[in-house]
Amino acid sequence: MTAETAKQRMKIFALNSNRPLAEKIAHEVGVPLGKATVNHFSDGEIQVNIDESIRGAKVYVIQSISEPVNDMLMELMIMVDALRRASASEINVVIPYYGYSRQDRKARSREPITAKLIADLLEMDKITRVLTIDLHAAQIQGFFDVPVDHLVAAPLLASYFTDHKITENLVVVSPDHAGVSRARTMADLLGAPIAIIDNRNVESSESLDEIPTEIIGKVAGKTCVVVDDMIDTGTRITISAEALKNAGATKVYGCATHAIFSKQAPKILQSSQLEKVVVTDTIRIGKEKQFDKLVEMSVGPLVGNAIKMIFNNEPLEPLFRSSIKK
Amino acid sequence: MTAETAKQRMKIFALNSNRPLAEKIAHEVGVPLGKATVNHFSDGEIQVNIDESIRGAKVYVIQSISEPVNDMLMELMIMVDALRRASASEINVVIPYYGYSRQDRKARSREPITAKLIADLLEMDKITRVLTIDLHAAQIQGFFDVPVDHLVAAPLLASYFTDHKITENLVVVSPDHAGVSRARTMADLLGAPIAIIDNRNVESSESLDEIPTEIIGKVAGKTCVVVDDMIDTGTRITISAEALKNAGATKVYGCATHAIFSKQAPKILQSSQLEKVVVTDTIRIGKEKQFDKLVEMSVGPLVGNAIKMIFNNEPLEPLFRSSIKK
Amino acid sequence: MTAETAKQRMKIFALNSNRPLAEKIAHEVGVPLGKATVNHFSDGEIQVNIDESIRGAKVYVIQSISEPVNDMLMELMIMVDALRRASASEINVVIPYYGYSRQDRKARSREPITAKLIADLLEMDKITRVLTIDLHAAQIQGFFDVPVDHLVAAPLLASYFTDHKITENLVVVSPDHAGVSRARTMADLLGAPIAIIDNRNVESSESLDEIPTEIIGKVAGKTCVVVDDMIDTGTRITISAEALKNAGATKVYGCATHAIFSKQAPKILQSSQLEKVVVTDTIRIGKEKQFDKLVEMSVGPLVGNAIKMIFNNEPLEPLFRSSIKK
Amino acid sequence: MTAETAKQRMKIFALNSNRPLAEKIAHEVGVPLGKATVNHFSDGEIQVNIDESIRGAKVYVIQSISEPVNDMLMELMIMVDALRRASASEINVVIPYYGYSRQDRKARSREPITAKLIADLLEMDKITRVLTIDLHAAQIQGFFDVPVDHLVAAPLLASYFTDHKITENLVVVSPDHAGVSRARTMADLLGAPIAIIDNRNVESSESLDEIPTEIIGKVAGKTCVVVDDMIDTGTRITISAEALKNAGATKVYGCATHAIFSKQAPKILQSSQLEKVVVTDTIRIGKEKQFDKLVEMSVGPLVGNAIKMIFNNEPLEPLFRSSIKK
Amino acid sequence: MTAETAKQRMKIFALNSNRPLAEKIAHEVGVPLGKATVNHFSDGEIQVNIDESIRGAKVYVIQSISEPVNDMLMELMIMVDALRRASASEINVVIPYYGYSRQDRKARSREPITAKLIADLLEMDKITRVLTIDLHAAQIQGFFDVPVDHLVAAPLLASYFTDHKITENLVVVSPDHAGVSRARTMADLLGAPIAIIDNRNVESSESLDEIPTEIIGKVAGKTCVVVDDMIDTGTRITISAEALKNAGATKVYGCATHAIFSKQAPKILQSSQLEKVVVTDTIRIGKEKQFDKLVEMSVGPLVGNAIKMIFNNEPLEPLFRSSIKK
Amino acid sequence: MTAETAKQRMKIFALNSNRPLAEKIAHEVGVPLGKATVNHFSDGEIQVNIDESIRGAKVYVIQSISEPVNDMLMELMIMVDALRRASASEINVVIPYYGYSRQDRKARSREPITAKLIADLLEMDKITRVLTIDLHAAQIQGFFDVPVDHLVAAPLLASYFTDHKITENLVVVSPDHAGVSRARTMADLLGAPIAIIDNRNVESSESLDEIPTEIIGKVAGKTCVVVDDMIDTGTRITISAEALKNAGATKVYGCATHAIFSKQAPKILQSSQLEKVVVTDTIRIGKEKQFDKLVEMSVGPLVGNAIKMIFNNEPLEPLFRSSIKK
Repeated sequence: MTAETAKQRMKIFALNSNRPLAEKIAHEVGVPLGKATVNHFSDGEIQVNIDESIRGAKVYVIQSISEPVNDMLMELMIMVDALRRASASEINVVIPYYGYSRQDRKARSREPITAKLIADLLEMDKITRVLTIDLHAAQIQGFFDVPVDHLVAAPLLASYFTDHKITENLVVVSPDHAGVSRARTMADLLGAPIAIIDNRNVESSESLDEIPTEIIGKVAGKTCVVVDDMIDTGTRITISAEALKNAGATKVYGCATHAIFSKQAPKILQSSQLEKVVVTDTIRIGKEKQFDKLVEMSVGPLVGNAIKMIFNNEPLEPLFRSSIKK
Repeated sequence: MTAETAKQRMKIFALNSNRPLAEKIAHEVGVPLGKATVNHFSDGEIQVNIDESIRGAKVYVIQSISEPVNDMLMELMIMVDALRRASASEINVVIPYYGYSRQDRKARSREPITAKLIADLLEMDKITRVLTIDLHAAQIQGFFDVPVDHLVAAPLLASYFTDHKITENLVVVSPDHAGVSRARTMADLLGAPIAIIDNRNVESSESLDEIPTEIIGKVAGKTCVVVDDMIDTGTRITISAEALKNAGATKVYGCATHAIFSKQAPKILQSSQLEKVVVTDTIRIGKEKQFDKLVEMSVGPLVGNAIKMIFNNEPLEPLFRSSIKK
Repeated sequence: MTAETAKQRMKIFALNSNRPLAEKIAHEVGVPLGKATVNHFSDGEIQVNIDESIRGAKVYVIQSISEPVNDMLMELMIMVDALRRASASEINVVIPYYGYSRQDRKARSREPITAKLIADLLEMDKITRVLTIDLHAAQIQGFFDVPVDHLVAAPLLASYFTDHKITENLVVVSPDHAGVSRARTMADLLGAPIAIIDNRNVESSESLDEIPTEIIGKVAGKTCVVVDDMIDTGTRITISAEALKNAGATKVYGCATHAIFSKQAPKILQSSQLEKVVVTDTIRIGKEKQFDKLVEMSVGPLVGNAIKMIFNNEPLEPLFRSSIKK
Repeated sequence: MTAETAKQRMKIFALNSNRPLAEKIAHEVGVPLGKATVNHFSDGEIQVNIDESIRGAKVYVIQSISEPVNDMLMELMIMVDALRRASASEINVVIPYYGYSRQDRKARSREPITAKLIADLLEMDKITRVLTIDLHAAQIQGFFDVPVDHLVAAPLLASYFTDHKITENLVVVSPDHAGVSRARTMADLLGAPIAIIDNRNVESSESLDEIPTEIIGKVAGKTCVVVDDMIDTGTRITISAEALKNAGATKVYGCATHAIFSKQAPKILQSSQLEKVVVTDTIRIGKEKQFDKLVEMSVGPLVGNAIKMIFNNEPLEPLFRSSIKK
Repeated sequence: MTAETAKQRMKIFALNSNRPLAEKIAHEVGVPLGKATVNHFSDGEIQVNIDESIRGAKVYVIQSISEPVNDMLMELMIMVDALRRASASEINVVIPYYGYSRQDRKARSREPITAKLIADLLEMDKITRVLTIDLHAAQIQGFFDVPVDHLVAAPLLASYFTDHKITENLVVVSPDHAGVSRARTMADLLGAPIAIIDNRNVESSESLDEIPTEIIGKVAGKTCVVVDDMIDTGTRITISAEALKNAGATKVYGCATHAIFSKQAPKILQSSQLEKVVVTDTIRIGKEKQFDKLVEMSVGPLVGNAIKMIFNNEPLEPLFRSSIKK
Repeated sequence: MTAETAKQRMKIFALNSNRPLAEKIAHEVGVPLGKATVNHFSDGEIQVNIDESIRGAKVYVIQSISEPVNDMLMELMIMVDALRRASASEINVVIPYYGYSRQDRKARSREPITAKLIADLLEMDKITRVLTIDLHAAQIQGFFDVPVDHLVAAPLLASYFTDHKITENLVVVSPDHAGVSRARTMADLLGAPIAIIDNRNVESSESLDEIPTEIIGKVAGKTCVVVDDMIDTGTRITISAEALKNAGATKVYGCATHAIFSKQAPKILQSSQLEKVVVTDTIRIGKEKQFDKLVEMSVGPLVGNAIKMIFNNEPLEPLFRSSIKK
């Protein structure tokens, strides 16, 4: 098959959650976005129209399951249903941000495991593959039986600090117990030690009002980089920054892959003790959510390269070793 | 098993789409609604907590897939996931209004069949049974492999006209081609002939601006009852009423099972040529959607009786023969 | 891939229901029918032998589920089982007439939905795609999860009337309530208005003895074209013709896609008030079922073209816009 | 649960293949046959109506997959579909004769394995259990994932010989290579040695014209009991009898569980060298298939007892140890 | 149903991995272990014989997936296959130690996710429920679609320290980054702060030779309780103890739920700086693995109570709040 | 596609059961074995690492399910899981010896059907095809829904006798009732008659101590070739040889496809009355299992050719007609 016909047989479609990222990805791949229309009726029903033939094509659909998550998820499932019925030969689902990923286990009696439900819903729809970035727990890969290509944004985020020479006297801080491995990975990239915020009795991102009681590890006189996988209301990272400052940290940076920024997050973050909040564009950050301290780095080249490699049956390993920026 | 223990082993849960109807149903059955909490976070994620043990219980979950349909559907699927993981012995899903039911076939190339997708999503979640009312097409029953108990609201709606002595010189009118069988059923209940609005080239309920060209059947000097399964924007039934009046009808009533009432529907209906708009409460009609011409009849007793019969393994046939009102 | 190798990798097999049509289709596609033997033993068991290698081939199996429907269905399922075990890369099932399609919903308590059962049986057998014509209800597409390419014979049937200049003063008539949309489609093709036979309390095609009570719409002095999807015993269309004549119609033509012609249908139709009975060859019409008024048009070119387009991953849309005749 | 309520919750339905046996079974169990109607239309379509509520009942459906096998199989599958949709709590399928069981492996390239297809079709329909007798190969049990209760008719058939004092100087003969284990079982019940007809190059029951070349084992001066699982055209057992006589056997009896008796079987068997042909009633033997040498023994008590034991959760082992006759 | 009949309908079977624990569980429940034989042939094939009828019974099978894990897993799957085919009404799988649980994600390219594979294997076998203790990652619950009742041994392990008054000046230590949440839970039970061993670049439990570089948190002058979910080769916890002593800890205790004790673990642990090694009996610890510092606490009462509650449809929540010891 | 790229897209991997055979197969195909590492930890857990990219490749995995069968089976399933998650386009499983194949039916109450369980486990893992040799029962093919290419070793084994001119005055002997068809096939290849060892009441290969009571057929003065599908403990074939000698046979050869050789088999066979024991290398025969009378023939060329034909979509029929030796 020549490169020409290969391109013709690949189709990339963007749904509504993050069209700017989809365009960056398509640009990287070198194909235009496919033509499709997604209407939302007044009662919330979604109607999908694919406006060009995709019979026999290898399709990549780009959709983050981000706010409003249920609508974005339904857009995706309906689109996949339409693609399957329209005889696509492959349906590759690109989910830069996998919503509901925090509901990944039964923490209390009679809880659902919604992250698994999402996986089941998509697999039932007979998808070929999932391509995603920084799942809340790596075990979510196992929720799927189809191949999951799991990209990591850590090298991209780390490059901000190395590019801006923020590398002296650093300590990487995990804002909770579950994120210590993530902090360790970033610390290895930056050549730094780690510390942990020991915040007891915290059950959800909605109720982080109390000040954590203790910091484990040395932070006095150091530049701290607080690393999380996502920033939701911004409370946790803000409180962490305050605690670190109280404990003698000289500067505190925040960084995370997924910028949910719900409620008053932008305001809270801007008025926090953080120097900068470094995130990626897996979730579209609208104008109303922009703020001065925000640094946004694009995963477009990373995802675009991954799609090219997958389409050409090349191994993705090189993507894990270095950051790809533009 | 005694009736006492039977009651204890049945649990009815209401989600957020239509709590008033759920309470009427529970009242008819004679059991209190189960305790559960459904939180919607600011990014749209839903969290379900079931606050009492349902281990081994036969559970009935009541949820219309109505505005906002995607959120209500996700509430339902997450609830079912939680119930299954919490060891319910049966999960009976009561869906008074089955949203997306109009997307029941591939009308054009590359369309999804979302009504089937919903069925697949629910079956994948391993439900025991579906109980629903007046599906847009009866074939949707076949989208499921689990038993579907399909109730009809026609006797209930017909009872409004017989109770109010609106039985003389009647003609039942179908507002489009696909609804003629439905009109015939209502006509049989009211002992009336039928007529049809022949509206050409109309593809969706969103674009019904043009006046239909012709009425097939005799309506001059008659009282018309326009019957539909659902009223969405209200445009179709309003235009139908106008056409019937132009054709010499003396009075026009509208009736439908499902009151979607999206956009300006209440306003349009109130200012239409319709005498009354008779609907059921399968979809909750909030205060902002009330209007003077509206007549709302409750399916609560119908559904409640059906649940009792199902729980006791009695045949539902009696429910199809007469209306149940309260 | 060159056209030569493409041809070699496509195989078309005909089973026993309609070999003449299969040959027309294969001729249109330009490949010979594959070699296979189907034996029926004296107790009814079927033995299938595929007499040439199909390893890795994209196979198209042509079989109408027509009289004797159970044998034809079993032939198809056994053939598909053999094809799958023999390593076909694709198994495309071409079903010109989809039997049991009238059992598409639970009309009464405790009825099966056999049209869904057929779909489930075929999907369980792991088919790639279904290609069919004029399903009794379009919703049957949703009974499948694999792609269904649903062809329409209306343009082909309409061409009979336009070719023979039967276009003046026409009205298209639906012989029952459920077929009004179908009549509307044909009416659009012929530029005509519609009318409806209002036959009450008719439950099956077996018991159509009583005269329908009313015709809705204007037929006096007009040439009527009664349109149905199938003609089974012929009673319904014959009675419709009589009623239309009684109501003043000048001429009545019958047309339908599927010619089941069970029992005395040929005799009844020949002696009816119909001028002509225009049908297609989705079901093989044996010599014993031929009669003078019969006009048979072949769907062979339509299906053959569809197969070519599917094989070449081209969109089928052009087939919906115009009739293909030979 | 009392016996009274237990009876009320069990329903036994008979389809059309073998109503006399079904009545014997129901009589043994002590419950009347359930009310259901099965119509065959002129094009072969089957319509099933279940005429009494079976909601929550444990249903046993009795149907042999015998001539005409495809119709009997479709009756069964459609009935099961109807039962599932009508909320039966258990669907136990009783198949006294499992048709297509000889197609249990791929003997040549590109053959189907139809016996597995039947199992898959039934499992897809979500049955609870299969109860059957003397499968052609015991491995067919493994084609199912649901429990299979596999009864054996050997003790019943053996009882004919012990009851009639045909026990002296016996040899049990297998008419082909595959049935030697079956002959060994019968020989153990009758305390006899075995012999084998070594018929080379015989591929199907349709082409047994040539005389087998050799008998392995001693038969001269002995009474032979030729044992097979089924008698189809009767050719094999007739030729075996002739060969045994030629080899000096004094008398030859035939016995088999399943009496297919296709084509000229009754005539051939009557005019053969066989003294008696002892079979069971797993397949209904109509009047036209009766002949003087035929001995028919009923499996009704055996199956009836099995159903009672299954319903009461008792082990079936006792049924394997002794014959049950009436 | 009376308690008497309830008991009769519950069956508990033990396979070969941990019969002493199974006996403790059965004793707690108050039923004898069911009779079954499991043979291992010389080539490794396993043969399972269930020696009493379990038709209709609710069966609980107890089997840890412990050394030799593949044999123990196959014993379990073969037993479940036998139980299903023998018509058990429920198959509850009790897996005190879930082997392969560390392979719960794709850590490197082209790795399997064996913990998910195990879940899929068991679900394919149609089990009713899984009952397990302290999964390596809580997300493994989501690998299943059937209910998982996930017990925690932390209260039981904590009771050792409270019973022996080891509660003063404590710090709970996580031996790696991933276990910090587990340490936090134990710390809450003991009212203590936490510390972390920051061991870089450690990929598997097989290669823990190097001394970890740093301890995060204060341990000097304290009594340390190192908490892990499992002790495999013992290297990690031994090195941790040494590092803690070097950092000034006065005493170090080890505790873990699952005692794999592979290779030289007992020897290494006995000669380590640990005071005691407190574990449970989820894995059978043979005589050859006993050592002086070992403290073994039984989960028998915990599991036995859980089974009783599950059988009686009672909520398991009370089990999470307090320890159950005997 | 050119031959060059075709080769590059095929990958053959060997697991641990039979690497010498895998190398012969790879040599025949003309591709090197793929790089993968399989570690067994001390508790029995298996870790698979695939050390080269297989994205999009058609993979053939070679693994006999031989001693230790459970470990070899788990290696295979874990490898398949890894391959699927690593985006192989096809996973062809080559199983020269299919362990557990003797557990292919429920011979007694409450037995598992482990041969079906293995098939289900592999199918659940989503394999493309199975390639195997001489299944214990041909019906096991039907346990799979994916294509099974079933090779036969009889021509290869027969070639030993024809090559060594052991063709005069031969009789082929089945050592039990179930293997008579197998003996007939070999007898046809060698132009010989058959005989049968009539060993009563023998239930498993573990308890063959008693001398069989009778030989059916003529063996005196003849050269006997005892044919079985596998030799496990060697007891059956040794006893058969003794019985044949006692009955006057001049020489006795043993031959079988699968050389399990468990327990003392090599010793027993060497000291038996057998002249030679002719087997294939479907199971690796280690040095400790070699003995003087052993003749080992390689299925490598047979399997290698089959893989080439499958890869090139050529029919395998030629392989069934003649032996392939090297």
